[in-house]
Amino acid sequence: MHFMTALRDAWRERDTLLCVGLDPDPARFPAHLKGRRDAIFEFCRAIIDATADLVCCFKPQIAYFAAHRAEDQLEALIRHVHAAHPGIPVILDAKRGDIGSTAEMYAVEAFERFGADAVTANPYMGHDSVRPYLERADKGVILLCRTSNPGGSDLQFLDVGGHRLYEHVARLVAEQWNENGNCALVVGATFPDEVARVRALTGEMPLLVPGIGAQGGDIAATVRGGRTPDGTGLMISSSREILYAGGGEDFAAVAREVAQATRRAINDWR
Amino acid sequence: MHFMTALRDAWRERDTLLCVGLDPDPARFPAHLKGRRDAIFEFCRAIIDATADLVCCFKPQIAYFAAHRAEDQLEALIRHVHAAHPGIPVILDAKRGDIGSTAEMYAVEAFERFGADAVTANPYMGHDSVRPYLERADKGVILLCRTSNPGGSDLQFLDVGGHRLYEHVARLVAEQWNENGNCALVVGATFPDEVARVRALTGEMPLLVPGIGAQGGDIAATVRGGRTPDGTGLMISSSREILYAGGGEDFAAVAREVAQATRRAINDWR
Repeated sequence: MHFMTALRDAWRERDTLLCVGLDPDPARFPAHLKGRRDAIFEFCRAIIDATADLVCCFKPQIAYFAAHRAEDQLEALIRHVHAAHPGIPVILDAKRGDIGSTAEMYAVEAFERFGADAVTANPYMGHDSVRPYLERADKGVILLCRTSNPGGSDLQFLDVGGHRLYEHVARLVAEQWNENGNCALVVGATFPDEVARVRALTGEMPLLVPGIGAQGGDIAATVRGGRTPDGTGLMISSSREILYAGGGEDFAAVAREVAQATRRAINDWR
Repeated sequence: MHFMTALRDAWRERDTLLCVGLDPDPARFPAHLKGRRDAIFEFCRAIIDATADLVCCFKPQIAYFAAHRAEDQLEALIRHVHAAHPGIPVILDAKRGDIGSTAEMYAVEAFERFGADAVTANPYMGHDSVRPYLERADKGVILLCRTSNPGGSDLQFLDVGGHRLYEHVARLVAEQWNENGNCALVVGATFPDEVARVRALTGEMPLLVPGIGAQGGDIAATVRGGRTPDGTGLMISSSREILYAGGGEDFAAVAREVAQATRRAINDWR
Protein backbone atom coordinates (compact mmCIF):
# COMPACT_ATOMS: atom_id res chain seq x y z
CA MET A 1 0.00 0.00 0.00
CA HIS A 2 1.18 3.52 -0.83
CA PHE A 3 0.10 5.63 2.14
CA MET A 4 -0.62 8.94 0.41
CA THR A 5 -2.50 7.27 -2.44
CA ALA A 6 -4.53 5.14 -0.05
CA LEU A 7 -5.35 8.15 2.11
CA ARG A 8 -6.53 10.24 -0.85
CA ASP A 9 -8.58 7.32 -2.18
CA ALA A 10 -10.15 6.85 1.25
CA TRP A 11 -11.04 10.56 1.52
CA ARG A 12 -12.73 10.50 -1.85
CA GLU A 13 -14.31 7.07 -2.00
CA ARG A 14 -15.45 6.87 1.62
CA ASP A 15 -16.34 10.56 1.93
CA THR A 16 -14.77 10.89 5.37
CA LEU A 17 -11.95 12.74 7.13
CA LEU A 18 -12.38 10.79 10.36
CA CYS A 19 -9.43 8.90 11.89
CA VAL A 20 -10.28 6.58 14.76
CA GLY A 21 -7.49 6.54 17.31
CA LEU A 22 -6.90 3.24 19.10
CA ASP A 23 -5.82 4.00 22.69
CA PRO A 24 -6.89 0.79 24.44
CA ASP A 25 -7.12 1.12 28.21
CA PRO A 26 -8.11 -2.24 29.74
CA ALA A 27 -9.44 -0.49 32.87
CA ARG A 28 -12.19 0.99 30.68
CA PHE A 29 -13.09 -2.18 28.75
CA PRO A 30 -16.60 -3.68 29.00
CA ALA A 31 -16.93 -6.32 31.70
CA HIS A 32 -17.24 -9.25 29.26
CA LEU A 33 -13.74 -8.57 27.88
CA LYS A 34 -11.97 -8.10 31.19
CA GLY A 35 -9.48 -10.76 32.13
CA ARG A 36 -9.17 -12.15 28.60
CA ARG A 37 -5.56 -12.58 27.53
CA ASP A 38 -6.35 -11.06 24.13
CA ALA A 39 -8.68 -8.36 25.50
CA ILE A 40 -6.76 -5.51 23.85
CA PHE A 41 -6.90 -7.18 20.45
CA GLU A 42 -10.57 -8.11 20.78
CA PHE A 43 -11.60 -4.65 21.97
CA CYS A 44 -9.78 -2.90 19.14
CA ARG A 45 -10.82 -5.44 16.53
CA ALA A 46 -14.49 -4.88 17.40
CA ILE A 47 -14.04 -1.09 17.15
CA ILE A 48 -12.23 -1.44 13.82
CA ASP A 49 -14.85 -3.73 12.30
CA ALA A 50 -17.66 -1.45 13.49
CA THR A 51 -16.18 1.77 12.11
CA ALA A 52 -14.07 0.77 9.09
CA ASP A 53 -16.52 2.16 6.51
CA LEU A 54 -16.56 5.52 8.33
CA VAL A 55 -12.84 6.29 8.52
CA CYS A 56 -10.00 7.39 6.26
CA CYS A 57 -7.40 5.76 8.55
CA PHE A 58 -6.84 4.09 11.93
CA LYS A 59 -4.23 5.29 14.40
CA PRO A 60 -3.09 2.91 17.16
CA GLN A 61 -1.08 4.64 19.91
CA ILE A 62 1.81 2.31 20.72
CA ALA A 63 2.22 3.39 24.37
CA TYR A 64 -1.09 1.77 25.29
CA PHE A 65 0.14 -1.53 23.91
CA ALA A 66 3.68 -1.25 25.28
CA ALA A 67 2.47 -0.49 28.81
CA HIS A 68 0.64 -3.85 28.76
CA ARG A 69 3.28 -5.98 27.00
CA ALA A 70 0.86 -6.24 24.08
CA GLU A 71 3.08 -5.62 21.07
CA ASP A 72 1.96 -8.97 19.67
CA GLN A 73 -1.66 -7.82 19.82
CA LEU A 74 -0.72 -4.60 18.02
CA GLU A 75 0.97 -6.59 15.25
CA ALA A 76 -2.12 -8.78 14.93
CA LEU A 77 -4.42 -5.75 14.81
CA ILE A 78 -2.58 -4.07 11.97
CA ARG A 79 -2.58 -7.36 10.07
CA HIS A 80 -6.32 -7.56 10.70
CA VAL A 81 -6.97 -4.07 9.27
CA HIS A 82 -5.04 -4.91 6.13
CA ALA A 83 -6.73 -8.28 5.67
CA ALA A 84 -10.30 -7.40 6.58
CA HIS A 85 -10.42 -3.79 5.38
CA PRO A 86 -7.98 -3.48 2.49
CA GLY A 87 -7.15 0.07 1.44
CA ILE A 88 -7.48 1.63 4.88
CA PRO A 89 -4.06 2.89 6.00
CA VAL A 90 -2.81 2.44 9.57
CA ILE A 91 -0.78 5.16 11.26
CA LEU A 92 1.47 3.95 14.08
CA ASP A 93 1.39 6.80 16.60
CA ALA A 94 4.82 6.41 18.17
CA LYS A 95 6.40 9.88 17.94
CA ARG A 96 9.89 8.41 17.70
CA GLY A 97 13.03 10.31 16.75
CA ASP A 98 16.72 9.48 17.26
CA ILE A 99 20.12 9.59 15.58
CA GLY A 100 20.63 7.90 12.23
CA SER A 101 21.59 4.36 13.24
CA THR A 102 18.85 4.19 15.87
CA ALA A 103 16.33 5.83 13.56
CA GLU A 104 16.96 2.92 11.15
CA MET A 105 15.90 0.53 13.92
CA TYR A 106 12.76 2.57 14.61
CA ALA A 107 11.90 2.37 10.90
CA VAL A 108 12.28 -1.42 11.07
CA GLU A 109 10.03 -1.47 14.14
CA ALA A 110 7.28 0.60 12.52
CA PHE A 111 7.28 -0.69 8.97
CA GLU A 112 8.67 -4.25 9.06
CA ARG A 113 7.66 -5.49 12.48
CA PHE A 114 4.31 -3.73 12.87
CA GLY A 115 3.57 -3.30 9.16
CA ALA A 116 2.29 0.27 9.63
CA ASP A 117 1.60 2.43 6.59
CA ALA A 118 2.64 5.66 8.30
CA VAL A 119 4.27 6.75 11.53
CA THR A 120 4.27 9.88 13.67
CA ALA A 121 7.70 11.34 14.43
CA ASN A 122 9.24 14.11 16.50
CA PRO A 123 11.26 16.78 14.63
CA TYR A 124 13.41 18.03 17.56
CA MET A 125 16.53 16.08 16.51
CA GLY A 126 16.37 17.28 12.90
CA HIS A 127 16.48 15.84 9.41
CA ASP A 128 18.77 12.83 9.80
CA SER A 129 16.75 11.61 12.79
CA VAL A 130 13.76 10.98 10.52
CA ARG A 131 15.57 10.27 7.24
CA PRO A 132 15.03 6.47 7.42
CA TYR A 133 11.31 7.19 7.51
CA LEU A 134 11.44 9.85 4.78
CA GLU A 135 13.31 7.54 2.43
CA ARG A 136 10.42 5.10 2.40
CA ALA A 137 8.37 6.88 -0.27
CA ASP A 138 5.48 4.43 0.14
CA LYS A 139 5.16 5.20 3.86
CA GLY A 140 3.73 8.32 5.47
CA VAL A 141 5.82 10.41 7.88
CA ILE A 142 3.67 12.59 10.09
CA LEU A 143 5.77 15.13 11.98
CA LEU A 144 4.76 16.87 15.19
CA CYS A 145 4.19 20.54 14.45
CA ARG A 146 1.66 22.19 16.80
CA THR A 147 0.42 19.73 19.41
CA SER A 148 -2.95 19.83 21.15
CA ASN A 149 -1.73 19.67 24.77
CA PRO A 150 -1.34 22.64 27.17
CA GLY A 151 2.47 22.37 27.23
CA GLY A 152 2.56 22.43 23.44
CA SER A 153 3.32 26.16 23.64
CA ASP A 154 6.44 25.72 25.83
CA LEU A 155 8.65 25.32 22.76
CA GLN A 156 6.39 25.37 19.71
CA PHE A 157 5.20 28.93 20.33
CA LEU A 158 8.65 30.47 20.74
CA ASP A 159 9.51 33.28 18.36
CA VAL A 160 12.31 32.18 16.03
CA GLY A 161 12.87 35.35 14.03
CA GLY A 162 9.42 36.77 13.36
CA HIS A 163 7.52 33.49 13.32
CA ARG A 164 6.75 30.68 15.73
CA LEU A 165 8.78 27.50 16.04
CA TYR A 166 5.81 25.40 14.85
CA GLU A 167 5.61 27.58 11.71
CA HIS A 168 9.31 27.01 11.15
CA VAL A 169 8.74 23.25 11.42
CA ALA A 170 5.82 23.43 8.98
CA ARG A 171 7.98 25.26 6.43
CA LEU A 172 11.00 23.02 6.97
CA VAL A 173 8.92 19.91 6.35
CA ALA A 174 7.03 21.37 3.38
CA GLU A 175 10.07 22.91 1.69
CA GLN A 176 12.93 20.54 2.57
CA TRP A 177 11.88 17.23 4.12
CA ASN A 178 9.05 16.36 1.71
CA GLU A 179 11.18 15.36 -1.28
CA ASN A 180 9.27 12.09 -1.65
CA GLY A 181 5.87 13.68 -1.13
CA ASN A 182 5.22 11.45 1.88
CA CYS A 183 5.12 14.01 4.72
CA ALA A 184 2.21 15.19 6.82
CA LEU A 185 1.99 17.27 10.00
CA VAL A 186 0.31 16.99 13.41
CA VAL A 187 -1.64 20.12 14.31
CA GLY A 188 -4.02 20.10 17.28
CA ALA A 189 -7.69 20.98 16.88
CA THR A 190 -7.45 22.87 20.18
CA PHE A 191 -5.74 25.66 18.20
CA PRO A 192 -7.89 26.12 15.06
CA ASP A 193 -6.23 29.42 14.08
CA GLU A 194 -2.95 27.57 13.93
CA VAL A 195 -4.48 24.79 11.85
CA ALA A 196 -5.33 27.53 9.34
CA ARG A 197 -1.85 29.01 9.60
CA VAL A 198 -0.20 25.63 8.91
CA ARG A 199 -2.58 25.04 5.99
CA ALA A 200 -1.51 28.39 4.53
CA LEU A 201 2.16 27.45 4.85
CA THR A 202 2.00 23.91 3.46
CA GLY A 203 -0.21 23.90 0.37
CA GLU A 204 -2.13 20.62 0.28
CA MET A 205 -0.04 18.65 2.77
CA PRO A 206 -2.22 16.31 4.84
CA LEU A 207 -2.71 17.35 8.46
CA LEU A 208 -3.36 14.89 11.27
CA VAL A 209 -5.56 16.74 13.75
CA PRO A 210 -6.05 15.28 17.22
CA GLY A 211 -7.86 17.18 19.93
CA ILE A 212 -11.54 17.00 19.03
CA GLY A 213 -13.78 15.06 21.38
CA ALA A 214 -12.31 14.53 24.86
CA GLN A 215 -9.77 17.31 24.35
CA GLY A 216 -12.41 19.90 23.41
CA GLY A 217 -11.28 21.08 19.97
CA ASP A 218 -13.74 22.92 17.73
CA ILE A 219 -14.74 20.79 14.71
CA ALA A 220 -16.18 23.64 12.62
CA ALA A 221 -13.18 25.93 13.04
CA THR A 222 -10.76 23.06 12.47
CA VAL A 223 -12.37 21.94 9.21
CA ARG A 224 -12.80 25.47 7.86
CA GLY A 225 -9.22 26.33 8.72
CA GLY A 226 -7.58 23.09 7.63
CA ARG A 227 -9.44 21.75 4.58
CA THR A 228 -7.88 21.92 1.13
CA PRO A 229 -9.85 23.43 -1.80
CA ASP A 230 -11.36 20.02 -2.62
CA GLY A 231 -12.62 19.61 0.96
CA THR A 232 -10.05 17.03 2.08
CA GLY A 233 -6.50 17.36 3.48
CA LEU A 234 -7.37 16.39 7.05
CA MET A 235 -7.22 13.27 9.20
CA ILE A 236 -9.32 14.35 12.18
CA SER A 237 -8.60 11.96 14.99
CA SER A 238 -10.93 10.99 17.80
CA SER A 239 -10.08 8.26 20.27
CA ARG A 240 -11.58 8.12 23.75
CA GLU A 241 -14.90 9.73 22.86
CA ILE A 242 -15.53 6.93 20.36
CA LEU A 243 -13.82 3.98 22.07
CA TYR A 244 -15.51 4.39 25.44
CA ALA A 245 -18.91 5.73 24.34
CA GLY A 246 -20.55 2.49 25.42
CA GLY A 247 -19.64 0.34 28.38
CA GLY A 248 -21.59 -2.85 27.69
CA GLU A 249 -21.49 -5.80 25.33
CA ASP A 250 -22.77 -3.49 22.57
CA PHE A 251 -19.80 -1.11 22.96
CA ALA A 252 -18.77 -1.42 19.31
CA ALA A 253 -22.25 -0.54 18.04
CA VAL A 254 -22.33 2.49 20.35
CA ALA A 255 -18.85 3.48 19.17
CA ARG A 256 -20.12 3.25 15.60
CA GLU A 257 -22.95 5.68 16.38
CA VAL A 258 -20.52 8.24 17.81
CA ALA A 259 -18.14 7.74 14.88
CA GLN A 260 -21.04 8.28 12.47
CA ALA A 261 -22.08 11.47 14.25
CA THR A 262 -18.49 12.73 14.30
CA ARG A 263 -18.02 12.01 10.60
CA ARG A 264 -21.26 13.87 9.87
CA ALA A 265 -20.28 16.82 12.05
CA ILE A 266 -16.99 17.02 10.16
CA ASN A 267 -18.65 16.69 6.74
CA ASP A 268 -21.11 19.50 7.61
CA TRP A 269 -18.18 21.92 7.44
CA ARG A 270 -16.33 20.63 4.39
CA MET B 1 16.83 2.67 43.85
CA HIS B 2 16.85 6.48 43.77
CA PHE B 3 18.42 7.35 40.42
CA MET B 4 20.23 10.58 41.35
CA THR B 5 21.59 9.12 44.59
CA ALA B 6 22.75 5.95 42.85
CA LEU B 7 24.40 7.94 40.07
CA ARG B 8 26.29 10.17 42.49
CA ASP B 9 27.36 7.16 44.55
CA ALA B 10 28.56 5.43 41.39
CA TRP B 11 30.57 8.47 40.28
CA ARG B 12 32.30 8.68 43.65
CA GLU B 13 32.71 5.06 44.66
CA ARG B 14 33.59 3.65 41.25
CA ASP B 15 35.58 6.69 40.09
CA THR B 16 34.06 6.66 36.62
CA LEU B 17 31.92 8.85 34.37
CA LEU B 18 31.55 6.15 31.71
CA CYS B 19 28.13 5.00 30.55
CA VAL B 20 28.07 1.91 28.37
CA GLY B 21 25.30 2.16 25.78
CA LEU B 22 23.64 -1.10 24.81
CA ASP B 23 22.70 -0.93 21.10
CA PRO B 24 22.61 -4.62 20.22
CA ASP B 25 22.78 -5.31 16.49
CA PRO B 26 22.59 -9.07 15.83
CA ALA B 27 24.28 -8.62 12.44
CA ARG B 28 27.46 -7.64 14.33
CA PHE B 29 27.38 -10.35 16.99
CA PRO B 30 30.21 -12.92 17.24
CA ALA B 31 29.55 -16.08 15.28
CA HIS B 32 29.03 -18.29 18.34
CA LEU B 33 25.99 -16.22 19.39
CA LYS B 34 24.32 -16.01 15.99
CA GLY B 35 21.05 -17.87 15.62
CA ARG B 36 20.47 -18.22 19.37
CA ARG B 37 16.95 -17.21 20.37
CA ASP B 38 18.34 -15.25 23.34
CA ALA B 39 21.36 -13.85 21.45
CA ILE B 40 20.52 -10.24 22.27
CA PHE B 41 20.25 -11.01 25.98
CA GLU B 42 23.42 -13.09 26.03
CA PHE B 43 25.45 -10.53 24.08
CA CYS B 44 24.39 -7.66 26.34
CA ARG B 45 24.68 -9.72 29.53
CA ALA B 46 28.29 -10.56 28.70
CA ILE B 47 29.08 -6.89 28.01
CA ILE B 48 27.39 -5.84 31.26
CA ASP B 49 29.20 -8.41 33.39
CA ALA B 50 32.56 -7.51 31.80
CA THR B 51 32.21 -3.76 32.30
CA ALA B 52 30.03 -3.29 35.40
CA ASP B 53 32.88 -2.18 37.66
CA LEU B 54 33.92 0.46 35.10
CA VAL B 55 30.63 2.30 34.59
CA CYS B 56 28.38 4.76 36.40
CA CYS B 57 25.33 3.55 34.46
CA PHE B 58 24.13 1.40 31.56
CA LYS B 59 21.94 2.75 28.78
CA PRO B 60 19.99 0.27 26.63
CA GLN B 61 18.52 1.83 23.46
CA ILE B 62 15.00 0.42 23.12
CA ALA B 63 14.82 0.68 19.29
CA TYR B 64 17.42 -2.09 18.93
CA PHE B 65 15.24 -4.40 21.01
CA ALA B 66 11.92 -3.34 19.47
CA ALA B 67 13.18 -3.87 15.92
CA HIS B 68 13.85 -7.52 16.84
CA ARG B 69 10.73 -8.21 18.94
CA ALA B 70 13.06 -8.54 21.94
CA GLU B 71 11.27 -6.52 24.61
CA ASP B 72 11.32 -9.63 26.84
CA GLN B 73 15.11 -9.77 26.56
CA LEU B 74 15.32 -6.08 27.49
CA GLU B 75 13.19 -6.71 30.58
CA ALA B 76 15.43 -9.61 31.54
CA LEU B 77 18.59 -7.55 31.02
CA ILE B 78 17.48 -4.73 33.29
CA ARG B 79 16.50 -7.30 35.94
CA HIS B 80 19.96 -8.83 35.51
CA VAL B 81 21.76 -5.51 36.09
CA HIS B 82 19.77 -4.90 39.27
CA ALA B 83 20.32 -8.42 40.58
CA ALA B 84 23.96 -8.97 39.64
CA HIS B 85 25.27 -5.42 39.93
CA PRO B 86 23.16 -3.66 42.57
CA GLY B 87 23.56 0.10 42.71
CA ILE B 88 24.22 0.61 39.00
CA PRO B 89 21.35 2.59 37.49
CA VAL B 90 19.88 1.72 34.10
CA ILE B 91 18.74 4.46 31.71
CA LEU B 92 16.13 3.40 29.18
CA ASP B 93 17.00 5.39 26.06
CA ALA B 94 13.57 5.75 24.50
CA LYS B 95 13.19 9.51 23.84
CA ARG B 96 9.43 9.31 24.27
CA GLY B 97 7.11 12.28 24.61
CA ASP B 98 3.34 12.56 24.17
CA ILE B 99 0.20 14.15 25.65
CA GLY B 100 -0.71 13.58 29.29
CA SER B 101 -2.78 10.40 29.10
CA THR B 102 -0.35 8.73 26.69
CA ALA B 103 2.66 9.97 28.66
CA GLU B 104 1.24 8.08 31.66
CA MET B 105 1.38 4.89 29.57
CA TYR B 106 4.97 5.60 28.55
CA ALA B 107 5.86 6.02 32.23
CA VAL B 108 4.29 2.63 32.96
CA GLU B 109 6.28 1.14 30.07
CA ALA B 110 9.61 2.55 31.26
CA PHE B 111 9.35 2.20 35.02
CA GLU B 112 6.89 -0.64 35.72
CA ARG B 113 7.31 -2.90 32.74
CA PHE B 114 11.03 -2.46 32.09
CA GLY B 115 12.02 -1.40 35.61
CA ALA B 116 14.34 1.34 34.35
CA ASP B 117 15.82 3.84 36.80
CA ALA B 118 15.79 6.72 34.34
CA VAL B 119 14.47 7.48 30.88
CA THR B 120 15.40 9.84 28.06
CA ALA B 121 12.58 12.09 26.84
CA ASN B 122 11.90 14.63 24.10
CA PRO B 123 10.91 18.16 25.20
CA TYR B 124 9.17 19.30 21.97
CA MET B 125 5.64 18.74 23.34
CA GLY B 126 6.31 20.65 26.55
CA HIS B 127 5.89 20.19 30.27
CA ASP B 128 2.74 18.08 30.53
CA SER B 129 4.16 15.61 27.99
CA VAL B 130 6.87 14.62 30.48
CA ARG B 131 5.06 15.31 33.76
CA PRO B 132 4.36 11.62 34.50
CA TYR B 133 8.11 11.07 34.39
CA LEU B 134 8.96 14.21 36.41
CA GLU B 135 6.53 13.26 39.16
CA ARG B 136 8.48 10.08 39.88
CA ALA B 137 11.09 11.71 42.12
CA ASP B 138 13.03 8.45 42.43
CA LYS B 139 13.43 8.16 38.65
CA GLY B 140 15.72 10.19 36.41
CA VAL B 141 14.30 12.20 33.49
CA ILE B 142 16.95 12.99 30.91
CA LEU B 143 15.71 15.53 28.39
CA LEU B 144 17.09 16.04 24.90
CA CYS B 145 18.83 19.40 24.76
CA ARG B 146 21.66 19.54 22.17
CA THR B 147 21.95 16.28 20.30
CA SER B 148 25.09 14.87 18.71
CA ASN B 149 23.75 14.25 15.20
CA PRO B 150 24.23 16.51 12.15
CA GLY B 151 20.53 17.46 11.99
CA GLY B 152 20.63 18.46 15.65
CA SER B 153 21.08 22.07 14.55
CA ASP B 154 17.90 22.15 12.40
CA LEU B 155 15.79 23.22 15.37
CA GLN B 156 18.08 23.27 18.41
CA PHE B 157 20.32 26.01 17.03
CA LEU B 158 17.51 28.42 16.12
CA ASP B 159 17.70 31.85 17.72
CA VAL B 160 14.80 32.28 20.15
CA GLY B 161 15.33 35.84 21.30
CA GLY B 162 19.09 36.22 21.75
CA HIS B 163 19.85 32.62 22.64
CA ARG B 164 19.59 29.22 21.00
CA LEU B 165 16.64 26.86 21.38
CA TYR B 166 18.84 24.28 23.16
CA GLU B 167 19.84 26.96 25.70
CA HIS B 168 16.16 27.75 26.22
CA VAL B 169 15.50 24.06 26.87
CA ALA B 170 18.41 23.88 29.32
CA ARG B 171 17.04 26.85 31.28
CA LEU B 172 13.46 25.63 31.15
CA VAL B 173 14.46 22.27 32.58
CA ALA B 174 16.84 23.70 35.20
CA GLU B 175 14.52 26.48 36.35
CA GLN B 176 11.03 25.02 35.95
CA TRP B 177 10.88 21.29 35.28
CA ASN B 178 13.37 20.14 37.92
CA GLU B 179 11.16 20.62 40.98
CA ASN B 180 11.96 17.10 42.19
CA GLY B 181 15.67 17.35 41.47
CA ASN B 182 15.44 14.39 39.08
CA CYS B 183 16.24 16.03 35.74
CA ALA B 184 19.30 15.69 33.52
CA LEU B 185 20.04 16.76 29.94
CA VAL B 186 21.41 15.16 26.78
CA VAL B 187 24.24 17.19 25.23
CA GLY B 188 26.36 15.72 22.45
CA ALA B 189 30.13 15.45 22.77
CA THR B 190 30.36 16.47 19.12
CA PHE B 191 29.71 20.04 20.30
CA PRO B 192 32.01 20.52 23.33
CA ASP B 193 31.53 24.31 23.43
CA GLU B 194 27.87 23.70 23.87
CA VAL B 195 28.49 21.16 26.62
CA ALA B 196 30.28 24.01 28.45
CA ARG B 197 27.43 26.42 27.71
CA VAL B 198 24.83 24.00 29.10
CA ARG B 199 27.01 23.40 32.15
CA ALA B 200 27.12 27.16 32.76
CA LEU B 201 23.32 27.38 32.53
CA THR B 202 22.41 24.43 34.72
CA GLY B 203 24.61 24.42 37.81
CA GLU B 204 25.38 20.83 38.75
CA MET B 205 22.67 19.10 36.72
CA PRO B 206 23.92 15.76 35.36
CA LEU B 207 24.57 15.70 31.62
CA LEU B 208 24.31 12.57 29.49
CA VAL B 209 26.88 12.97 26.75
CA PRO B 210 26.74 10.67 23.72
CA GLY B 211 28.96 11.17 20.72
CA ILE B 212 32.42 10.04 21.79
CA GLY B 213 33.83 6.99 20.07
CA ALA B 214 32.13 6.13 16.77
CA GLN B 215 30.63 9.62 16.47
CA GLY B 216 34.01 11.35 16.90
CA GLY B 217 33.43 13.63 19.90
CA ASP B 218 36.44 15.09 21.74
CA ILE B 219 36.82 13.55 25.22
CA ALA B 220 39.18 16.20 26.63
CA ALA B 221 37.04 19.15 25.55
CA THR B 222 33.87 17.41 26.68
CA VAL B 223 35.17 16.67 30.17
CA ARG B 224 36.76 20.08 30.67
CA GLY B 225 33.60 21.82 29.47
CA GLY B 226 31.07 19.65 31.25
CA ARG B 227 32.51 18.53 34.60
CA THR B 228 31.22 19.99 37.85
CA PRO B 229 33.69 21.44 40.41
CA ASP B 230 34.05 18.02 42.08
CA GLY B 231 34.98 16.40 38.75
CA THR B 232 31.67 14.59 38.19
CA GLY B 233 28.36 15.69 36.60
CA LEU B 234 28.75 13.67 33.39
CA MET B 235 27.53 10.36 32.05
CA ILE B 236 29.74 9.95 28.98
CA SER B 237 28.18 7.34 26.79
CA SER B 238 29.96 5.02 24.40
CA SER B 239 28.20 2.20 22.59
CA ARG B 240 29.41 0.77 19.31
CA GLU B 241 33.12 1.39 19.93
CA ILE B 242 32.91 -0.78 23.05
CA LEU B 243 30.28 -3.34 22.02
CA TYR B 244 31.89 -4.31 18.73
CA ALA B 245 35.58 -3.91 19.61
CA GLY B 246 36.06 -7.67 19.39
CA GLY B 247 34.38 -10.05 17.00
CA GLY B 248 35.24 -13.41 18.50
CA GLU B 249 34.32 -15.53 21.50
CA ASP B 250 36.37 -13.16 23.68
CA PHE B 251 34.29 -10.13 22.60
CA ALA B 252 33.37 -9.24 26.19
CA ALA B 253 37.01 -9.22 27.34
CA VAL B 254 37.95 -7.02 24.38
CA ALA B 255 35.03 -4.73 25.16
CA ARG B 256 36.30 -4.50 28.72
CA GLU B 257 39.71 -3.34 27.51
CA VAL B 258 38.17 -0.57 25.42
CA ALA B 259 35.87 0.43 28.28
CA GLN B 260 38.88 0.59 30.62
CA ALA B 261 40.81 2.75 28.16
CA THR B 262 37.82 5.04 27.65
CA ARG B 263 37.29 5.41 31.41
CA ARG B 264 40.98 6.25 31.82
CA ALA B 265 40.91 8.76 28.95
CA ILE B 266 37.94 10.46 30.62
CA ASN B 267 39.53 10.43 34.07
CA ASP B 268 42.72 12.01 32.67
CA TRP B 269 40.73 15.21 32.13
CA ARG B 270 38.69 15.36 35.32
